Amino acid sequence: MHKIPVGVLGASGYAGRELCALIATHPHLDLAFATANAQQGESLALPFGRSITFQATEAAKLADATLIFTALPHGASARWVARARDAGAKVVDLSHDLRIGNGASEGVPYGLTELRRDQVKGAHTVANPGCYPTSVLLALAPLIEHDLIAPDGAVQIASASGVTGAGLTPRLDLLFGEVTENFRAYGVGNTHRHLNEMLACVQEMGARCDLLFTPHLLPVARGILSTITVPLRAPLDDALALYRTRYANEPFVEIADELPELRQVQHRNVARITARPVANTRTPMLQLFSAIDNLVKGAAGQALQNANLMLGLEETLGLPR
Amino acid sequence: MHKIPVGVLGASGYAGRELCALIATHPHLDLAFATANAQQGESLALPFGRSITFQATEAAKLADATLIFTALPHGASARWVARARDAGAKVVDLSHDLRIGNGASEGVPYGLTELRRDQVKGAHTVANPGCYPTSVLLALAPLIEHDLIAPDGAVQIASASGVTGAGLTPRLDLLFGEVTENFRAYGVGNTHRHLNEMLACVQEMGARCDLLFTPHLLPVARGILSTITVPLRAPLDDALALYRTRYANEPFVEIADELPELRQVQHRNVARITARPVANTRTPMLQLFSAIDNLVKGAAGQALQNANLMLGLEETLGLPR
Amino acid sequence: MHKIPVGVLGASGYAGRELCALIATHPHLDLAFATANAQQGESLALPFGRSITFQATEAAKLADATLIFTALPHGASARWVARARDAGAKVVDLSHDLRIGNGASEGVPYGLTELRRDQVKGAHTVANPGCYPTSVLLALAPLIEHDLIAPDGAVQIASASGVTGAGLTPRLDLLFGEVTENFRAYGVGNTHRHLNEMLACVQEMGARCDLLFTPHLLPVARGILSTITVPLRAPLDDALALYRTRYANEPFVEIADELPELRQVQHRNVARITARPVANTRTPMLQLFSAIDNLVKGAAGQALQNANLMLGLEETLGLPR
Amino acid sequence: MHKIPVGVLGASGYAGRELCALIATHPHLDLAFATANAQQGESLALPFGRSITFQATEAAKLADATLIFTALPHGASARWVARARDAGAKVVDLSHDLRIGNGASEGVPYGLTELRRDQVKGAHTVANPGCYPTSVLLALAPLIEHDLIAPDGAVQIASASGVTGAGLTPRLDLLFGEVTENFRAYGVGNTHRHLNEMLACVQEMGARCDLLFTPHLLPVARGILSTITVPLRAPLDDALALYRTRYANEPFVEIADELPELRQVQHRNVARITARPVANTRTPMLQLFSAIDNLVKGAAGQALQNANLMLGLEETLGLPR
Repeated sequence: MHKIPVGVLGASGYAGRELCALIATHPHLDLAFATANAQQGESLALPFGRSITFQATEAAKLADATLIFTALPHGASARWVARARDAGAKVVDLSHDLRIGNGASEGVPYGLTELRRDQVKGAHTVANPGCYPTSVLLALAPLIEHDLIAPDGAVQIASASGVTGAGLTPRLDLLFGEVTENFRAYGVGNTHRHLNEMLACVQEMGARCDLLFTPHLLPVARGILSTITVPLRAPLDDALALYRTRYANEPFVEIADELPELRQVQHRNVARITARPVANTRTPMLQLFSAIDNLVKGAAGQALQNANLMLGLEETLGLPR
Repeated sequence: MHKIPVGVLGASGYAGRELCALIATHPHLDLAFATANAQQGESLALPFGRSITFQATEAAKLADATLIFTALPHGASARWVARARDAGAKVVDLSHDLRIGNGASEGVPYGLTELRRDQVKGAHTVANPGCYPTSVLLALAPLIEHDLIAPDGAVQIASASGVTGAGLTPRLDLLFGEVTENFRAYGVGNTHRHLNEMLACVQEMGARCDLLFTPHLLPVARGILSTITVPLRAPLDDALALYRTRYANEPFVEIADELPELRQVQHRNVARITARPVANTRTPMLQLFSAIDNLVKGAAGQALQNANLMLGLEETLGLPR
Repeated sequence: MHKIPVGVLGASGYAGRELCALIATHPHLDLAFATANAQQGESLALPFGRSITFQATEAAKLADATLIFTALPHGASARWVARARDAGAKVVDLSHDLRIGNGASEGVPYGLTELRRDQVKGAHTVANPGCYPTSVLLALAPLIEHDLIAPDGAVQIASASGVTGAGLTPRLDLLFGEVTENFRAYGVGNTHRHLNEMLACVQEMGARCDLLFTPHLLPVARGILSTITVPLRAPLDDALALYRTRYANEPFVEIADELPELRQVQHRNVARITARPVANTRTPMLQLFSAIDNLVKGAAGQALQNANLMLGLEETLGLPR
Repeated sequence: MHKIPVGVLGASGYAGRELCALIATHPHLDLAFATANAQQGESLALPFGRSITFQATEAAKLADATLIFTALPHGASARWVARARDAGAKVVDLSHDLRIGNGASEGVPYGLTELRRDQVKGAHTVANPGCYPTSVLLALAPLIEHDLIAPDGAVQIASASGVTGAGLTPRLDLLFGEVTENFRAYGVGNTHRHLNEMLACVQEMGARCDLLFTPHLLPVARGILSTITVPLRAPLDDALALYRTRYANEPFVEIADELPELRQVQHRNVARITARPVANTRTPMLQLFSAIDNLVKGAAGQALQNANLMLGLEETLGLPR
């Protein structure tokens, strides 16, 4: 089979690099170009001893690619999505520019694959979800679909992410000397921009609850764990069974008996989720624990999963499980 | 001034070692003995090039000490508290054996110093609080004292602790190779034994809310951060001012504008707390962020703070700020 | 093609687990059994959502396997190698029991694949090299083969290893709280048992120099970096070219321009090596820097590489590059 | 006693901040000003809840200080040393600008306190040693003083440092995501600028050996361990006794039986050193292991130790042991 040429715009960040590495081991894709402005001319090592040299984004021959991934900074991406479409390429946009709750665009599905598979399959452009929303929405979906969440309650989400979630940027507060042996919340007050994305998605699915989202920065390189407390309409007997049924045929969602850990999902395109009853409260509650690798299922892996569908390939191709 | 002889039972764990080191630099205390059963005969390095040799707990001359700290395992401690009292010593018990919510004993105050200073001063024995409760209760106290918490609501507490909180025990799941680059919840379901301790304390203070406590294990050696979401009776304008007033004269509570980080409190006998408003929820909420060093303010430091009071010394002596 | 049944004795340690995971993704091998005494009955998660239950080593049906890997403790392994051979299986022994410099056995080649490929191909049993020796010997081999090392000089090796090199054993000094933010030498005095293994190998290759080996413990989970200083017979102009030529056709040795880092080799079956000239010394010297993943090229990966050859399979099958 | 006013130029880096914190707890010093150009106007938290605001270096009233520490970047420091002297202040320069082997200046002693105490006492300006040289030279001094090193041999130094040694600078290769779980050499080839400093010092002391210095970057925040192999003139029976005698009266050098670890010296102004015999080599060798905190004994602590002497104070004042 002829390989399908794809390109990556903004390939020098953590998500872009991860994407290039995944493409390099994909059986049916060929990495036609990878762009980076500040680091143009530099070489990126790829698996099997191969490498690719970053070219300027302006210099990329967009028309050479059947599908283009944009991993450009938020705000700068939308313009390049348009240019890539004009050049005839399909597009997976990893920025938040076209996501629901931000600047959703007509005909551009929100590519949380397990929830929108049919829309993704037929799409010309897909807005790839944020990392935190991926961990949270896959965990909440079964409860929303069965209308089990107390409609006037607040779902509380305490998430913790590894530092690669903040990108490959030279910030003093991300230096090893500042992060090691440390832990802190950030972006608090329930105004983080991923909140809108999550709210828009749960509302589209019919939920009316509030969300309260509090992110934290972990001294680890990669991985997100979301601890989610859900007020229920009524006590729920076997939540885990509900989850096992819902995701029985999903190759990239693992429902676990035990509590998920970051190391179980690192470098893998999976969300690992469990549900646990809560004792000693007057109103019924359920706790969900959801772990992903922010760079794989939370970014590059899910982007490739969507690309596979858009290109008519098998969804699991080239994705590490 | 003559130095006051004190002893430490169960000194070979993390809290016991920390306590011995603090005592060694205390201007008015002298470490008469330190006991450890499995490690008896081993030498513990102390500041200024000094050291002490662990003796068997049975061999300790309890009567030689004016005050004895017991850092023995939970369950084994209560018996030694009684023996120490029989020998005429005052006692600070670091185990949970005598704490409220567990096996509270008549006349043994729960030594969260800032909340029970007067009881501690006159006590013969004090039950030193657990590490998680210390971080949580100091944060909740001002709201409870002003009756600001919605009485039928649930205060949600997502805490994360460094591994020394689990003790110096040879568990496979605490090996460096298992903890590095990892993060997980544990003890979930709202049944952790620190829940009872916290519930008992907030109820004694008059609160009627539920508590939902979820601990997590961090890849750091020391420190606890508790992220606490409080449902309020009514919107609260300047929570931070309330906190500043409440703790204005407390040497070991820091009210911060910015979000507290573990590195700000490591090796120090302080709780660092801030309060933040929460947007985008239908019911009024407040978030508290509270950081302590689990081995200092959460264990050995607070124990020494209590001992200073019990011995009629200045409360801040020998405590790192 | 029918899959070839293989078994792993002593599969519950870090190397054994790594081996089981590699076998599970190998296209032509089938994991017939995995044994562990202390952890028998426990389940080991494998890729693709599969798992295997540890059985007692005594209970393993050795005759069911065409090839058996023994990852049993040093000292306990030799006996099981004999039993496995009696049962008709080929054997790769990961312990040091049969290695040169320890208890080398007639007809059991030392399986440093790149140096002994032909012996390994025809062998019934192979002694898989230690992790430190693998990193060192692949780096030294080109110099020895060209007789470039000063014969009366001492090659000095400062190696640093991640903690998984010490095994999955509940030692207090391997707890996260003891290893994080720490670094120390160990096994010093030039008497570490890997010294004999290295000396025997370089002497078999014809070198007469001394070796001085100093291992250190790193706060990382996996990886070894060896910094090797070699006294030369005479100045050497382009050492790197020599290395590139020597390893041009080796799929698992990477000769790099830049200094190798642990993260470049983690989870990969490669040794990454560079050579650098040394200025400001009166006698000519060369420095070699060699990085491997101690669990992959330093243990399980190399074992599988050897097994592939012993079974007549392509050498690279199932090995992560 | 009246407090002596001191100032810190270039106080926003790791060494400068450490110095400000030490001064803040010093019983006889008062921090008159702390300067930082990029971060002027920002506040630096100090112990006991105090803080100081960085002012522009140009704005500092140099004449207000009895002694000035310059922790400015290498190259920029010498000019400010001159200005501070013109203003009448004594100076401790933490840069390498005035150190031996770099741009040594007449009458400016190299402030390795234990080796040059008398020169430091009478000096108007002192060049504070580099971190690596401090760890190495204190270890080598007893051997040089007894002329025990083989004069035509090469002392090999493999050092590993925590990342704060590279300064508080926004470099991509110092991000947490790049350093965690990693290890690498850097500055190799025996041309690191600390080599000149060490060579000049050992030659001044009379040694004629070569030095071969290889630094490595550790995934820890602070600490240096130097593993030093010394070719000896003749076998040496009890090296440790020699070290104990040499440093018997030094408050900041600890001679240890066991191998030193980073955690034993972190946050302390000490060098912890041991010596070990080497077996299995044809020529006699000795290994030294020397650990310091690069920010304390390797920078700010030693600077304060020198300042105490220059000001006629007790050498140990304000220094953490």
